[in-house]
Amino acid sequence: MTLEFNQNIMEKITLSIVGASGYTGMETLRYLSKHPNFVLKSVYGASSAGQTIDEIYPAFMGVCENEIEPIDNLVKDTVDVVVLALPHGLSAAAANTLLKAGYKGKIIDIGSDFRLNTSPDYEKWYSMTHPHPELLEKFTYGLPEFNRFEVKNADYVANPGCFATALQLALIPLAQTGAIHDVYVTGLTGSSGSGAQHTATTHFTTREGNIMAYKVFKHQHIGEVEQNIARLGEKVPDIHFTPVSGSFTRGIWMTIAGSLSKTVDLEEVFESAYYNAPLVRLRQGLPELKPVVGSAFADIGWVQNGYNFVVGVAIDNMGKGAATQMFQNLNLMFDLPEETGLSDAGIIL
Amino acid sequence: MTLEFNQNIMEKITLSIVGASGYTGMETLRYLSKHPNFVLKSVYGASSAGQTIDEIYPAFMGVCENEIEPIDNLVKDTVDVVVLALPHGLSAAAANTLLKAGYKGKIIDIGSDFRLNTSPDYEKWYSMTHPHPELLEKFTYGLPEFNRFEVKNADYVANPGCFATALQLALIPLAQTGAIHDVYVTGLTGSSGSGAQHTATTHFTTREGNIMAYKVFKHQHIGEVEQNIARLGEKVPDIHFTPVSGSFTRGIWMTIAGSLSKTVDLEEVFESAYYNAPLVRLRQGLPELKPVVGSAFADIGWVQNGYNFVVGVAIDNMGKGAATQMFQNLNLMFDLPEETGLSDAGIIL
Amino acid sequence: MTLEFNQNIMEKITLSIVGASGYTGMETLRYLSKHPNFVLKSVYGASSAGQTIDEIYPAFMGVCENEIEPIDNLVKDTVDVVVLALPHGLSAAAANTLLKAGYKGKIIDIGSDFRLNTSPDYEKWYSMTHPHPELLEKFTYGLPEFNRFEVKNADYVANPGCFATALQLALIPLAQTGAIHDVYVTGLTGSSGSGAQHTATTHFTTREGNIMAYKVFKHQHIGEVEQNIARLGEKVPDIHFTPVSGSFTRGIWMTIAGSLSKTVDLEEVFESAYYNAPLVRLRQGLPELKPVVGSAFADIGWVQNGYNFVVGVAIDNMGKGAATQMFQNLNLMFDLPEETGLSDAGIIL
Amino acid sequence: MTLEFNQNIMEKITLSIVGASGYTGMETLRYLSKHPNFVLKSVYGASSAGQTIDEIYPAFMGVCENEIEPIDNLVKDTVDVVVLALPHGLSAAAANTLLKAGYKGKIIDIGSDFRLNTSPDYEKWYSMTHPHPELLEKFTYGLPEFNRFEVKNADYVANPGCFATALQLALIPLAQTGAIHDVYVTGLTGSSGSGAQHTATTHFTTREGNIMAYKVFKHQHIGEVEQNIARLGEKVPDIHFTPVSGSFTRGIWMTIAGSLSKTVDLEEVFESAYYNAPLVRLRQGLPELKPVVGSAFADIGWVQNGYNFVVGVAIDNMGKGAATQMFQNLNLMFDLPEETGLSDAGIIL
Repeated sequence: MTLEFNQNIMEKITLSIVGASGYTGMETLRYLSKHPNFVLKSVYGASSAGQTIDEIYPAFMGVCENEIEPIDNLVKDTVDVVVLALPHGLSAAAANTLLKAGYKGKIIDIGSDFRLNTSPDYEKWYSMTHPHPELLEKFTYGLPEFNRFEVKNADYVANPGCFATALQLALIPLAQTGAIHDVYVTGLTGSSGSGAQHTATTHFTTREGNIMAYKVFKHQHIGEVEQNIARLGEKVPDIHFTPVSGSFTRGIWMTIAGSLSKTVDLEEVFESAYYNAPLVRLRQGLPELKPVVGSAFADIGWVQNGYNFVVGVAIDNMGKGAATQMFQNLNLMFDLPEETGLSDAGIIL
Repeated sequence: MTLEFNQNIMEKITLSIVGASGYTGMETLRYLSKHPNFVLKSVYGASSAGQTIDEIYPAFMGVCENEIEPIDNLVKDTVDVVVLALPHGLSAAAANTLLKAGYKGKIIDIGSDFRLNTSPDYEKWYSMTHPHPELLEKFTYGLPEFNRFEVKNADYVANPGCFATALQLALIPLAQTGAIHDVYVTGLTGSSGSGAQHTATTHFTTREGNIMAYKVFKHQHIGEVEQNIARLGEKVPDIHFTPVSGSFTRGIWMTIAGSLSKTVDLEEVFESAYYNAPLVRLRQGLPELKPVVGSAFADIGWVQNGYNFVVGVAIDNMGKGAATQMFQNLNLMFDLPEETGLSDAGIIL
Repeated sequence: MTLEFNQNIMEKITLSIVGASGYTGMETLRYLSKHPNFVLKSVYGASSAGQTIDEIYPAFMGVCENEIEPIDNLVKDTVDVVVLALPHGLSAAAANTLLKAGYKGKIIDIGSDFRLNTSPDYEKWYSMTHPHPELLEKFTYGLPEFNRFEVKNADYVANPGCFATALQLALIPLAQTGAIHDVYVTGLTGSSGSGAQHTATTHFTTREGNIMAYKVFKHQHIGEVEQNIARLGEKVPDIHFTPVSGSFTRGIWMTIAGSLSKTVDLEEVFESAYYNAPLVRLRQGLPELKPVVGSAFADIGWVQNGYNFVVGVAIDNMGKGAATQMFQNLNLMFDLPEETGLSDAGIIL
Repeated sequence: MTLEFNQNIMEKITLSIVGASGYTGMETLRYLSKHPNFVLKSVYGASSAGQTIDEIYPAFMGVCENEIEPIDNLVKDTVDVVVLALPHGLSAAAANTLLKAGYKGKIIDIGSDFRLNTSPDYEKWYSMTHPHPELLEKFTYGLPEFNRFEVKNADYVANPGCFATALQLALIPLAQTGAIHDVYVTGLTGSSGSGAQHTATTHFTTREGNIMAYKVFKHQHIGEVEQNIARLGEKVPDIHFTPVSGSFTRGIWMTIAGSLSKTVDLEEVFESAYYNAPLVRLRQGLPELKPVVGSAFADIGWVQNGYNFVVGVAIDNMGKGAATQMFQNLNLMFDLPEETGLSDAGIIL
């Protein structure tokens, strides 16, 4: 399937989603409905099978009313690409099912099963044995701003975590300077990051007007950040990360503060890092959250005071932190311009 | 400019916006960036002239960075359609400027200057003399679900008010039964309905967690609803309307409760009224607000208990209550399918 | 136990709470900590037994750190008053346990088991057989603004429901005029009204920025309103009530719209109804919600246009809708001024 | 005025407020209405003179309905204590007026005019010349947890800033270890911190669902923190502080992250620092925000990982960050227990 093929014949690339009843599956459908090159074939689910998408998400009425098929049907699918949007442990099982069944298309996992390269790392950060460690080496970690070419050539891609995306967009350019002395991170996330299940921290009465830290210094996304910075050949800094639950639905807003061991001009650093990145916007000062909500953009800004700095990053956790980064990867995997279907504004107000 | 012209040559229809720094102008730009047939030529403003759109709304960075021109330049514009997005009193002045200057294109007013047919009505509801009463008869009131054909043939269209849109979508089908005995309306609106100016009721500290009624029984949108129901040849009911400010940014959510003077099946009434309306969705029971936010849809549902009923309507005040209804009208005015560029899902979560 | 006793000796009235881990139990503790005449003896719970209050509600750290006792211990309690704050079905069982055990003190039920006078009514509105119908006649419905004297002489009181309280404060004075022609009610409630359990409608992501109607025309509080208006000797109007879930934590805000069958001055009606009511405040126009949040006040206002009217009521569903109305009743039951411990301002901002 | 005097005779201490229409003046009135020892004499204002408190804040109806007097009347006041709740520049002028007029009582300034000791420091952080530098030395900085005895003996007290309070409660115990290697601070504040005036960042539509940094590394409260740590005889760390506007009304929530230059047990550090502090609560892990909202408490917690740490602080910016710290100081100045009138729970939900 080549670019020529897509552009001339305008035949659409077929795509199926496993786990369409979850939030990242839902957001994938939202962007899919606006994407000029991809077309939905099937949606699969476990407990949600038999329901239609608009029954679960009323906003899809008149837009996407597909019925969710039982996940057992997945073995017979022959689409161009399968998107896995499942909890950890389950996407590895689904990938295994596909590959065992002789599936010939591409796979991209929005979940967390293929982000870490090794089984021990997976066990360390997810507290369970990886169900299919033999598949780990098949997947390419897809953070397009830093490995477009690997993604272009990949058949199987692991989509980064939401916090991991925000953190790396700030940290990799800093690491590339070789001048990080130390770095402390506070990152706020919206409630959609916790998914559709009901928990104490997603109860409206508990969360409204509240701020709560969790997994301080221990968030599982640290693992993939450390691994990927090392893979890029940079010195891995100590990442002291405080994840925080905020009183809003969508978005990640993060401060990365620290000091440098030598004189560095952060403007040059970030301008150079994102010179060719159509979905990264560099801001004067720290970015606001709302301008990225509902969009595919990552906004980055910074304040520097001699050796000290604070870098701010804002993304939509459902967008650049999940579904739009997934399409950014898919665009590359199918030889389309990286930003295809992703360049409109968010909700603005 | 015909449908053939548009479809074959794919030449885009040119559009300029007067008042692009306001919320409805902004939302017009957001949908414009997704519309396949229209292209922006100029944006005009008074106090905002010289600024770029993305300076005022950071979410437009990388999406729409046009510079706002002084409104004096409007006289030289030769686009296919000018969108007026100005406070009351000012859009009539802008329309007059255009017409005096020999402007040949179409005009659509998102503001309130051409919604009422007569100068005394305008004075009654807006407490000021209409600046150009001679223009009133040139404009067609554009509520497409009830007058598609007039809109198709119109050069100058007045876009309905946000509350007026929600109210009429419930009330006109009821009025067409000839069976309204009485009707009481409570309608909640988000803060974006008050525009960008700072007021006591748009202060975050005042509004967060609060509910406030205003202009009870006296809201200016009642005037256009009464006039339009009469124009459609139906008996005009007494409209007892309580407008309410809610603690959210976007959307209108309304209950229209009352009783009927004879047996009527509301399911038949609404199914029949919206049989061919691609942007109206009929719901089981009263609709929720969130599924329409960020979308062009109006969701309508009802509960009936003998002669008593409550009808619920949910729209995005910036969408079906302003910018998407405007594009719905424009699509008709330029022989495009009514829902062109408007049929994707909203923000969902 | 007389007023003299309390005032001279300043010996405190002892109180135990059954169900202290729920929201109304929690709010009872909050007001108890500020009340000059009552003192906590025991808190009981089922699944929460063994935990301390501040473990469940961190805000109580340093304020109330009592350990929750198993509900089985209730039989041995000998306090002056037991407050039942349990789901429907369970408070009747707890009352039965107390009375069977020879408990000599007073009982007040914040729950819904003793609000309706008859077993069939209970079954109609709560879809279950009343577990102890023989106890129903022992309880006095406690809406102090309309039956202070019965409450003063009662040993067992049923505290009204939150929506029922708001609705009656508007409706009883109207009913007393004998001039209600018809009436339509829309009432918004905060998420705390749904209690601490996790449900689809209390999920932050679902509820934030949303508005959802539920149990339209069928809410169980209608039953107690109809019964109590009849008990007061007034004609019971048809109550067409649309309950609505709003995107806020605390409060009920309600519009009661309708028409009158004869000329009535609503200002006289409400001034006269609440002449001696220290916890009802009459407002110019419809009241805002926020000024009652965190307080014991009910705010009432209205707009009248000839025979048509809309009355607005605002209460804190946890306050006048539950815990502070309970203390208002308790104050009366123990010969204290009705507003004792209840007259400070709410949270204001 | 001694403790014996207060307790035996129960004569109340008289208090007047200058600037009662602002948020901190309002919150002072709220706590005053619950305080057993203080009684309001007069409220003064400039533009608000002639209005009553409940006209400005409807929540005070029935609670505090005093009329605001013109500020010119201040010269004749003879209360026991005057509370200044004015913008910077104006409280110094008011203090000067009082002292010139021979006022004999005590003064406490919730504003920022007497927090810095020197005129150049004031000019550096507030960009204006101090109007009465000769008064600076008369005022004692009142952070009771660290200088109770000075406050007890002071007649004129400067109440710390809200961010400065949160920051010092974390930083002073760390500084006292002599082991701070470096420290980075991110602090979120509610909209009430910006006061009642309308600004771009307090507009509901802009702020709802948004997060915005401001005055990064340059917030004026850094000045008083540096000065006060030095005054306590500790080495002043470099304070890299990112202030952030959050999408909530009340509260400050702050992370203070960094590393230590030697082994220190933070549990010992904070247990020892707040052994006798009735209004500081030490938490397991980082504190949540909501349990302090509406209360006088400061909640502090931490996570330590070898030399690295993150300390979390949560206060109500209107409470411990303004009005309740003011009463804590006043209690000390009038020989009352520090927590008098301040020890109830906040709003909880």
